[in-house]
Amino acid sequence: MTLPSATPLLDRVDTPEDLRALDDAELRQFADELRRETIDAVSVTGGHLGAGLGVVELTVALHHVFDTPRDRLIWDVGHQCYPHKIITGRRDRIRTLRKGDGLSGFTRRAESEYDPFGAGHSSTSISAGLGMAVARDLTGAANNVVAVIGDGAMSAGMAYEAMNNAGHLGSRLVVILNDNDMSIAPPTGAMSAYLARLASGRTYLSLRDIGKGLAKRLPKFVERGAQRAEEYARGFAMGGTLFEELGFYYVGPIDGHNLEHLLPVLRNVRDADLGPILVHVVTQKGKGYAPAEASADKYHGVSAFDVVSGAQAKPKANAPSYTKVFAESLIREAESDDRIVAITAAMPGGTGLDLFGKAFPQRTFDVGIAEQHAVTFAAGLATEGLRPFCAIYSTFLQRAYDQVVHDVAIQKLPVRFALDRAGLVGADGATHAGAYDLAFLGCLPDFVLMAPADEAELVHMVATAAAYDDGPSAFRYPRGEGVGVELPLRGRVLPIGRGRIVREGTTVALVSLGTRLKAAQEAAEELALKGVSATVVDARFAKPLDRALLLRLAREHEVMVTIEEAAEAGGFGAAVLQLLAMEGALDRGLKIRTLGLPDRFIEHDKPERQVSDAGLDAKAIAATALSALGRDVRAALRA
Amino acid sequence: MTLPSATPLLDRVDTPEDLRALDDAELRQFADELRRETIDAVSVTGGHLGAGLGVVELTVALHHVFDTPRDRLIWDVGHQCYPHKIITGRRDRIRTLRKGDGLSGFTRRAESEYDPFGAGHSSTSISAGLGMAVARDLTGAANNVVAVIGDGAMSAGMAYEAMNNAGHLGSRLVVILNDNDMSIAPPTGAMSAYLARLASGRTYLSLRDIGKGLAKRLPKFVERGAQRAEEYARGFAMGGTLFEELGFYYVGPIDGHNLEHLLPVLRNVRDADLGPILVHVVTQKGKGYAPAEASADKYHGVSAFDVVSGAQAKPKANAPSYTKVFAESLIREAESDDRIVAITAAMPGGTGLDLFGKAFPQRTFDVGIAEQHAVTFAAGLATEGLRPFCAIYSTFLQRAYDQVVHDVAIQKLPVRFALDRAGLVGADGATHAGAYDLAFLGCLPDFVLMAPADEAELVHMVATAAAYDDGPSAFRYPRGEGVGVELPLRGRVLPIGRGRIVREGTTVALVSLGTRLKAAQEAAEELALKGVSATVVDARFAKPLDRALLLRLAREHEVMVTIEEAAEAGGFGAAVLQLLAMEGALDRGLKIRTLGLPDRFIEHDKPERQVSDAGLDAKAIAATALSALGRDVRAALRA
Repeated sequence: MTLPSATPLLDRVDTPEDLRALDDAELRQFADELRRETIDAVSVTGGHLGAGLGVVELTVALHHVFDTPRDRLIWDVGHQCYPHKIITGRRDRIRTLRKGDGLSGFTRRAESEYDPFGAGHSSTSISAGLGMAVARDLTGAANNVVAVIGDGAMSAGMAYEAMNNAGHLGSRLVVILNDNDMSIAPPTGAMSAYLARLASGRTYLSLRDIGKGLAKRLPKFVERGAQRAEEYARGFAMGGTLFEELGFYYVGPIDGHNLEHLLPVLRNVRDADLGPILVHVVTQKGKGYAPAEASADKYHGVSAFDVVSGAQAKPKANAPSYTKVFAESLIREAESDDRIVAITAAMPGGTGLDLFGKAFPQRTFDVGIAEQHAVTFAAGLATEGLRPFCAIYSTFLQRAYDQVVHDVAIQKLPVRFALDRAGLVGADGATHAGAYDLAFLGCLPDFVLMAPADEAELVHMVATAAAYDDGPSAFRYPRGEGVGVELPLRGRVLPIGRGRIVREGTTVALVSLGTRLKAAQEAAEELALKGVSATVVDARFAKPLDRALLLRLAREHEVMVTIEEAAEAGGFGAAVLQLLAMEGALDRGLKIRTLGLPDRFIEHDKPERQVSDAGLDAKAIAATALSALGRDVRAALRA
Repeated sequence: MTLPSATPLLDRVDTPEDLRALDDAELRQFADELRRETIDAVSVTGGHLGAGLGVVELTVALHHVFDTPRDRLIWDVGHQCYPHKIITGRRDRIRTLRKGDGLSGFTRRAESEYDPFGAGHSSTSISAGLGMAVARDLTGAANNVVAVIGDGAMSAGMAYEAMNNAGHLGSRLVVILNDNDMSIAPPTGAMSAYLARLASGRTYLSLRDIGKGLAKRLPKFVERGAQRAEEYARGFAMGGTLFEELGFYYVGPIDGHNLEHLLPVLRNVRDADLGPILVHVVTQKGKGYAPAEASADKYHGVSAFDVVSGAQAKPKANAPSYTKVFAESLIREAESDDRIVAITAAMPGGTGLDLFGKAFPQRTFDVGIAEQHAVTFAAGLATEGLRPFCAIYSTFLQRAYDQVVHDVAIQKLPVRFALDRAGLVGADGATHAGAYDLAFLGCLPDFVLMAPADEAELVHMVATAAAYDDGPSAFRYPRGEGVGVELPLRGRVLPIGRGRIVREGTTVALVSLGTRLKAAQEAAEELALKGVSATVVDARFAKPLDRALLLRLAREHEVMVTIEEAAEAGGFGAAVLQLLAMEGALDRGLKIRTLGLPDRFIEHDKPERQVSDAGLDAKAIAATALSALGRDVRAALRA
């Protein structure tokens, strides 16, 4: 006996073409099925859940009303795209989300023609959509372009830059403001308060209001059966002035879970022959799944969980996370130094600054998704003698590079950058990997750059950064938990630009920066088994380099291998090479090799598989040394 | 007989303290004298003139009303700060502006306590000021913080991020919006149109209106002799809602050249115990100097000129500028390929896109000071099959690094970056030098990076970028004029990743990237005189490298010197070193040296002095090669 499917309508839909064959009346049930499937899939894979659940009806309505993929549909950030993936030909792979060789957790051009723009960082969708709209106009095409952007993403300057330009160009572009009053953390900033006023000062538009509103807002639109526009317009007084001042037609707010409201509005917007339109849709993150609705973070990012109870399968940690060690170390430093302040750009939980904020609420600043401002704001704090710690993921600091160069480095201001998620990050993939920080910071004069080999070293580096007041500094540390070493009660200030030897040897020097040290030590063991004596060094500093130590290592060893979990181009190894070259230490020959992240984007996968894919595990390090020595690697490894 | 001074009041003012001793009634004359002195100084030095002339009265009023330097006064961008410099103890050096060892053309912390924040790129002042205001509140100080920002700078997302955060924090901060409807080029964007509506929809506030307005806007303020606030408030209906929605008190618009209006408003604002206030001041760029007022760019940046006629001493050019060669080459490519479009971020003149825009107005996009949006907008255009050229100065591309990584590189979209002002830039100094592009782009997978050795090569590289459609590409070229070679009528597509040998030798290989090639050739001549035979190579590509050529050069020469006008860390030389190291080409010894911009910020000076300061002239190249060979450089150079 075959049980009836729990998702009979969804089973009939492989692509949006199939969805568009359904009647409006069937869409409520379809949305419920899609929600169920989303929950079930993420319960297996883990991943981003709350955001997707909040846009189930929106996803259904958009694909039903618009002619995707001919009409371009861009999901800002992309982590809310699981329902979208399920109905755009990827349902059969939806339980491979974020796994090696599986679907990406974000939109991705290479994955589907229904993903016209890849995302990962927020606030890019209006810019990309405007580009597509302008291209359409230049090439004489007639498709629609729809960008869906969250209220949190609206705090980023980039979204404002795009609206400013869109309002100026007047291109036909639809921006759906998905206002759930919640990005990852509760939102911050005046814009957020403004949106809350817009949404709370009135009830949602009724169907009748929608007709009235569109008649006024979209003057060329004629609602079927509508009476005279003037009549509708009477008594209709909407807010939205901020968007209107920026040149957008504003429609809303409407209930983003009510298909009877979403469908007519989107149809009207689709058929309006007008410049940019902003549709303000209010949704609830985690909608329709009780455990998510009840949770503080609305199940923003979850591990695999039990669908009935909502209980997440949190793997048991063997050691505290680097994030937590950072936060607790900083709290300890701040207890005895009231000049220490901390800044996050909308990631209080991810950076550990939620803990710092509990201890020092007056000295903690969440500026919203606004990395540019975060850095220059920190620079301003530093000019007045405070000691700001700017806690920004390595990959997000790319958003504020010019501010790091100008407002911090050129002025030699002692802003401390705590760069979490440096190196490979597992399931989040290439967009979130912290690969380039050593390259883009290492070229800046007078920048002190550190990377701890383990969590105890991180404690020392927080103390070192707190004490170092002569200019900018940064320390980079990885996602995930430490190696389990004992933590000092209080960090000690390290001598700037000095590495440490952790194993003395004779033939091969393995010089590691950061948490690959453990692999380097294992590689030394492997080499020892093959009769090759290896020195292992923890460089601690990518800048300034430990010149004396490196020159001695170069002099006393036949082979040198540098190891780092950062893009090999422009990283630690490149700096070591340049130092040795300029000192003439390569003139008589040194078999030097620089291991880092290879020159390609590394896909999402389990961290350990990413590391071996990158050639940064112990085996690869040992093989590199042996190969440099001229030994047949395979023979040596066989032996 | 001594002539009476033309600037009797100014002569009495060395610092703002002296200025504050003057009566209000004397300030009109003082401002006129300050304007005269500014014009006279810039007529000698060249530099930024129009912006400074527009803020003479504002400068006088601000220093008269506020207690600088205890009150922090931040000039956004900083190029309007010459009048400020004259009255803050630097008049005696004002005719050294932008000269070697002279005053910087921008604000600069190291130069004066009256410059609390250095600038150079726009739109940072609100963020920095907010940091100072928050630091004041945390430390219990009571000073004022004033940021002066232009309307053009308001198109940058960073300014919005800062306002969004300031409105949220509610700190006491004064933002003066200096609205001259003109940044470098005429402004663009919906915000600019909005400001124009605010300023034009009404006449300036009268003194009476100012009283009324402030009474309403700044509720706790009590104007001396003012009647009841309610009475004043009646009938007073200002705009400014956009700023108010972002949490600012809005005051204005007021005439920024009328001291009788500026002074009371600023005093009221100073004494108001309120959260952030935005004062909308309307000024005229180039004000008070007829040739500037009459000129299209309002004498934004000038060379030395004759005060009476306004005629600028333009040095005769021997060759067309790289900028112009780029623009003309792109026009030629676009004539036969209608997929080519061009994007600038508020620098149509500086990038040469004004010329392109004349030829192809529909295919040219000035997005305002909004580099982040510019790049992702270009990426959006590329997804639809267009061929966007994003013309952004090297230093300004730092503003859009994350967008380059995510929206272009990870998606392998064929956006072409034309990086003008790469390398040293002379009088604009460190903030405008294009030093880091090779480091921050060179680490990105699948990026094609080119640098022409001369203007004919630039023509070929424009053609190459136009034809290359497999992923992102960039070409970097310097400020100023070419070397005078003959220009091809049409560029030819170069083979990707292939260098060219321009001189065959035996002992030393000089491998140059970019326009230092001429110096490398001269160095080869010098070496030849000393009996050392040198090969000279134009690498053309920083990425991908010409592997076969480099390996051959390493094999066949005793010494290799790489030369580039970019930060040595993470640049071309570092990439060459890594390639050779990983290929084992250093194992048996190669005397390799990498010459680039040294690891410090290079001050403003004449370009040729900057180059020799950086150790990148022919003499330094030859000396490096000789030293690597083990010859006594001084002896060799004497011979």
